[in-house]
Amino acid sequence: MPVTVVGSIAFDAVKTPFGEHERMLGGAAVHFALAASFFDVVRIVGPVGDDFGESELEVLRRREIDVSGIEHVPGGRTFFWRGEYGWDLNTRATLETQLGVFEQFEPKLSAAARSSDVVFLANIQPDLQLAVRAQCQETRFAALDSMNLWIEVARDSLIEAINAVDCLILNDAELRQLAGKPSLVGAAREVLSWGPPGRRAVVAKLGEYGAALITADDYFSIPAFPLETVVDPTGAGDSFAGGFVGYIAAQGGDKPLTPNVLRRAMAYGTAIASFNVQEFGTERVARLRMDEIDERVVDLQRMTAFSTS
Amino acid sequence: MPVTVVGSIAFDAVKTPFGEHERMLGGAAVHFALAASFFDVVRIVGPVGDDFGESELEVLRRREIDVSGIEHVPGGRTFFWRGEYGWDLNTRATLETQLGVFEQFEPKLSAAARSSDVVFLANIQPDLQLAVRAQCQETRFAALDSMNLWIEVARDSLIEAINAVDCLILNDAELRQLAGKPSLVGAAREVLSWGPPGRRAVVAKLGEYGAALITADDYFSIPAFPLETVVDPTGAGDSFAGGFVGYIAAQGGDKPLTPNVLRRAMAYGTAIASFNVQEFGTERVARLRMDEIDERVVDLQRMTAFSTS
Repeated sequence: MPVTVVGSIAFDAVKTPFGEHERMLGGAAVHFALAASFFDVVRIVGPVGDDFGESELEVLRRREIDVSGIEHVPGGRTFFWRGEYGWDLNTRATLETQLGVFEQFEPKLSAAARSSDVVFLANIQPDLQLAVRAQCQETRFAALDSMNLWIEVARDSLIEAINAVDCLILNDAELRQLAGKPSLVGAAREVLSWGPPGRRAVVAKLGEYGAALITADDYFSIPAFPLETVVDPTGAGDSFAGGFVGYIAAQGGDKPLTPNVLRRAMAYGTAIASFNVQEFGTERVARLRMDEIDERVVDLQRMTAFSTS
Repeated sequence: MPVTVVGSIAFDAVKTPFGEHERMLGGAAVHFALAASFFDVVRIVGPVGDDFGESELEVLRRREIDVSGIEHVPGGRTFFWRGEYGWDLNTRATLETQLGVFEQFEPKLSAAARSSDVVFLANIQPDLQLAVRAQCQETRFAALDSMNLWIEVARDSLIEAINAVDCLILNDAELRQLAGKPSLVGAAREVLSWGPPGRRAVVAKLGEYGAALITADDYFSIPAFPLETVVDPTGAGDSFAGGFVGYIAAQGGDKPLTPNVLRRAMAYGTAIASFNVQEFGTERVARLRMDEIDERVVDLQRMTAFSTS
C-alpha cells in the first residue's frame, strides 16, 4: 500500500566525535521516506526553500520516492538544524534551529498523497498533524511521532491527534512524560486507554537500547543492533519509523496486522535505523540494499533468541 | 555445583515514590545469594556487626543458604546504606554510607567456601576480590561485579581481578568507563581482549532496559521484564547476577557452557531481578517459588521472539 509521509525536510549541521558536516540533507520526513522506500511506494510532503535543489531531490528520486508533494516556497529557506553529540552519542545539544519555510507551513495534500492507504505524520505541530489526518479519508493505517515540546505546549491537540491514528511512535522518556507514568508499560497502557478500542499500538523508541511495542494484548521488545561505532544518530528514530511503517504497508490491506507482522516490522525498523547511524546524514541508507537489511534482521533474530529448555 | 559469594551484607534504608523503609536486610551478597539459592547450594561470606541478628539469618536459612561464612565482628556495626530514588526510579541518590565492619574486612574463607566450584565476587575493593580469588583454587567458574569508584581509584587492581575470572558483570555505563569506549559492544570487546583467550564473557546490565551478553563469538540481548510498577530497584543487579550465575552452577561442571546455556542463564537472572524490584528489599524474592520464575522466563521468551518469515 502506498505511504504518505508529512513532516520536515531539512538541512542538518551535525558535529559528533567522528566529524563535522555542514548542510546535509535531513529532516524527519526524509529519513522516514528513505527507509520506507524499501517496502512500498512513498509520497513525501513538506516545504522547502530556494536553497533546496536538484541534488537533494535526486537522493529521494533514486529511491523512487514520489517528490511531487515537496512544496517549493519561493524566497524561503529550508528548515535548518544544528546539533552536537557528546562522547557516547547519547546526549545531544541543539545549537541552532531555523524554521524557515516551516513557519508558515499549511499542509495541502494532492489527490495522490491523500489517497495513500498508509500515512505517517512525522513530528510537527499536532494541529497540523490533525489537518493532514482529516485530509486522508482513505487511510487504512496511520501513525504519528511527536516530541516533548508539543507535550508541553499543545497537549490537548496532541492527544486528539494520537486518538485519530492507529499507532503512536514516541521516545520512551516522552511517552512517560505524556502519560505521567514512571513505567514504560504503564505509560503505554495509559495512552492505549485514551483512544477507541481496536487495532491500536504504541511503539516506544529506546534509543541505543532498541524499541518496545505495546498493544492491548501484546508486548514485544527488541534491542538495537549492536554496533562498535555509531557515527551520527540523527534520524535514527525516523529511519526506524520508516522501516516499521513501510513493512506494515507492504503487507497490503487485506491481511490483518497480526502480532508476528508487527514484530517483524519492529525488526525491519531496527535494522534500517542501525544502518542510518553508521554514517553521517542519509549517506548510508541512500545506498542501502534490501539484502543487507534482510541479513541484519536475521542477525537480530539470532541475537535475541533463546530456548526455555 | 556449589556457589560461594563474597560481598556486602547490609542494612538498607530506602525511599522510593512507593514508600520508605528503614533498616531492611540488603547488600549485594544477600541479594545474590537469595537469587542463586533457587539453583544450587549457596555459601555466603561477609562481615556483620552486633546489630545483625537471628531474624536476618533466618531469611537466608529459609532459602537453605549456608550462613556459616557470615563473620560476626564483636562490637562492630553492619554495613549501612541509605538511598532515595527519583520519580521514575532510574535515578538514585546515596544519602548515607556507613562501612562499619566492612572497613576492616579481610576475607578468610573456610575450607567449604574455598571448595565451591563457582565463585561470585560481589562489588568490593578489587584487592579483596583478588585475595578471595586466590583462596579458591578449585573454582571452575568465577564472576565479578564492580563499580565506578573502583574504576576510578583502583583501576589496575580491578583489571587484574577481571583477568582472574571467567565473567565480568557490570552496568553498561561503568563498562564504557572502564574500557574508555563509547559503544557497549566496543567496550565489551576491549575488556575481552585484555584477558587470556578462552571461556570468557562480559555481561552488561542495562537497568530497566535489560542486559546484554558479549563473548568472543556471541552477542545476546534480553529486555527487562516489563512491569507497570517498580517499587524498589535496590539489589536488582545482584539478583540478576545471582540468577545468572546460579543457573550456570546448576548445569554442573562437566557440560560445556554453550551459548544456549548462557542465554538461558541471562533469562533466569532477568526473571528473578524483575521479582526483586516489585517489593522493598528482599521481601519478594524471599518468598518466591521456582514455578513463578519459570513462568516469567517463558513470558520473556514469548515477548522477544519473532520469525523472519
